[in-house]
Amino acid sequence: MSEPGARGGSATPAAGPIRLLITGGTFDKAYDEISGRLDFKDTHLHEMLRLGRCRLELAVRTLMMIDSLEMTDADRRLIVESCRAAAEERIVITHGTDTMTDTARALGLEGLPKAIVLTGAMVPYAFGSSDGLFNLGSALSFVQVLPHGVYIAMNGRCFAWDDVAKNRDLGVFETRR
Amino acid sequence: MSEPGARGGSATPAAGPIRLLITGGTFDKAYDEISGRLDFKDTHLHEMLRLGRCRLELAVRTLMMIDSLEMTDADRRLIVESCRAAAEERIVITHGTDTMTDTARALGLEGLPKAIVLTGAMVPYAFGSSDGLFNLGSALSFVQVLPHGVYIAMNGRCFAWDDVAKNRDLGVFETRR
Amino acid sequence: MSEPGARGGSATPAAGPIRLLITGGTFDKAYDEISGRLDFKDTHLHEMLRLGRCRLELAVRTLMMIDSLEMTDADRRLIVESCRAAAEERIVITHGTDTMTDTARALGLEGLPKAIVLTGAMVPYAFGSSDGLFNLGSALSFVQVLPHGVYIAMNGRCFAWDDVAKNRDLGVFETRR
Amino acid sequence: MSEPGARGGSATPAAGPIRLLITGGTFDKAYDEISGRLDFKDTHLHEMLRLGRCRLELAVRTLMMIDSLEMTDADRRLIVESCRAAAEERIVITHGTDTMTDTARALGLEGLPKAIVLTGAMVPYAFGSSDGLFNLGSALSFVQVLPHGVYIAMNGRCFAWDDVAKNRDLGVFETRR
Repeated sequence: MSEPGARGGSATPAAGPIRLLITGGTFDKAYDEISGRLDFKDTHLHEMLRLGRCRLELAVRTLMMIDSLEMTDADRRLIVESCRAAAEERIVITHGTDTMTDTARALGLEGLPKAIVLTGAMVPYAFGSSDGLFNLGSALSFVQVLPHGVYIAMNGRCFAWDDVAKNRDLGVFETRR
Repeated sequence: MSEPGARGGSATPAAGPIRLLITGGTFDKAYDEISGRLDFKDTHLHEMLRLGRCRLELAVRTLMMIDSLEMTDADRRLIVESCRAAAEERIVITHGTDTMTDTARALGLEGLPKAIVLTGAMVPYAFGSSDGLFNLGSALSFVQVLPHGVYIAMNGRCFAWDDVAKNRDLGVFETRR
Repeated sequence: MSEPGARGGSATPAAGPIRLLITGGTFDKAYDEISGRLDFKDTHLHEMLRLGRCRLELAVRTLMMIDSLEMTDADRRLIVESCRAAAEERIVITHGTDTMTDTARALGLEGLPKAIVLTGAMVPYAFGSSDGLFNLGSALSFVQVLPHGVYIAMNGRCFAWDDVAKNRDLGVFETRR
Repeated sequence: MSEPGARGGSATPAAGPIRLLITGGTFDKAYDEISGRLDFKDTHLHEMLRLGRCRLELAVRTLMMIDSLEMTDADRRLIVESCRAAAEERIVITHGTDTMTDTARALGLEGLPKAIVLTGAMVPYAFGSSDGLFNLGSALSFVQVLPHGVYIAMNGRCFAWDDVAKNRDLGVFETRR
């Protein structure tokens, strides 16, 4: 069932570890009871992977823990360089949804020989009503099968980096028209 | 990025609705407070899809709500025929983990021109510590990119129907050795 | 076991309905996924009472849904008058923790012939890690047994209105020294 | 506000530690994913007290972890003797709901100079829809203000040991008619 392609993709799940880069976003927001505000503490990723009973070989790294509205060009360069330098061919990045398409574009333009999937959450994982765990399972699955390229995985769907936009009224991701 | 193959597969997300067949399993077990036992009531699938903010076009059908240890050949035939009769080319089946490989085998032997992914949960969705939502996101993603065939999606991984077994001591799915 | 006292108290659970006045506070904060901020939507009280399988006769009223840091004198007067006008002799008030002692004081100075217990939460009920449900059970229980007076129920404890302060560093309530 | 009575009760919160005796029951049931059945592992009490941000001085002891349907006379004698031997004047006991009234009776007949409140849950705490946290807050509050005696705290209410029965059809506690 293997379909080797010029871009290194395979339509069957690839072997080898997957790199998981954490950048924060709503995904990891926490409620600070002393200040009454949302902020970042430790990532919830490890707890989520335990909950999902995920048995994939993963190399997890926290690059930053920020709201993506506060991401600078320097932050995006760090993400791009981390992807370039990673030994792994398959990378999932957790990211705030507000500027996820910007980071996806910065990565897409690099044309790295890797499959990179960005995902996030509309509601913090710390809330009972979060989409975080669903999106994590989705992104980790897409990244194992998609050919090299840069994608966004949200709402159960998968979008190419150059054909996606966040619909800010509905809070969902869609292809551009 | 399209890799047309004899088996109708594609490594990029396919368009068209996905059929979601519900058969019960631990995934959907509920706690009955009057009897003190676990049983089945309504499926949690719709609530889970809402939580995941899933925007895929889905045709959801409940075939049965049983523990897979109680599945009979007649039950499996119903699952096979439902898959054959479905208009959709891509199908996800929620199923108890105990005999998931048996149903996967029954389907695999049919060689239907469809991508079929079975998934379940080790802990009922009704529990806070369930892997159900993670697995649902995983299965719905795999089914969009895998070529025609029958698969099991558990523990973040994807297994071909003829190379998977449930490790009953550890409660995880693995390839056979 | 009845100890009738000048202040109408009783050390055994009183009969008759209990009034539950909702004013908002962290207790009822919700996460708005479009704005990314915390705000107020419908109260969670009814859902919490269902979860607790509460069989008390309750008259539930929402007076306002605000952060207690934004409470004005007019808001407090509304709370006081609602307590005065209530047919019930026993009242629980859900309230933000930041100025709960101020409202308790305003009520305490009125000397109403009622048992009034204020409670709240350090973490919104919408979060999995909320103290809301615990505090609600606590307040509803204290109000059934305490003599007439005004109290704050937090952290499993019960404080008289004129001997309590919020320790803002630790985020807990204590008696004043 | 103190009402000293022959039975040592007080309608204002008592000082001094409260003993918390754990016996299991639905309160503490856990789902075993390997067997697919409900059983007992470690108690959830400590986690619940943390969630409730409970600042009471508590002496917590696990006496047993069993379904109350399996309680024997020997088990009940252990509970009675533990209450008698406890240094504390105020005791909360977590217990299965099925035979809670039997244990309450065994304790009531002893006439110990203590306030003892039994509570439990209709749905295991491990489930998102549990009444456990509400009942725990309720019991810990009642025990601080009730006079000496034996009580059951369920459904937000408090019942004297000799005037309570579990309505098995509805799954709630009521006074006997």
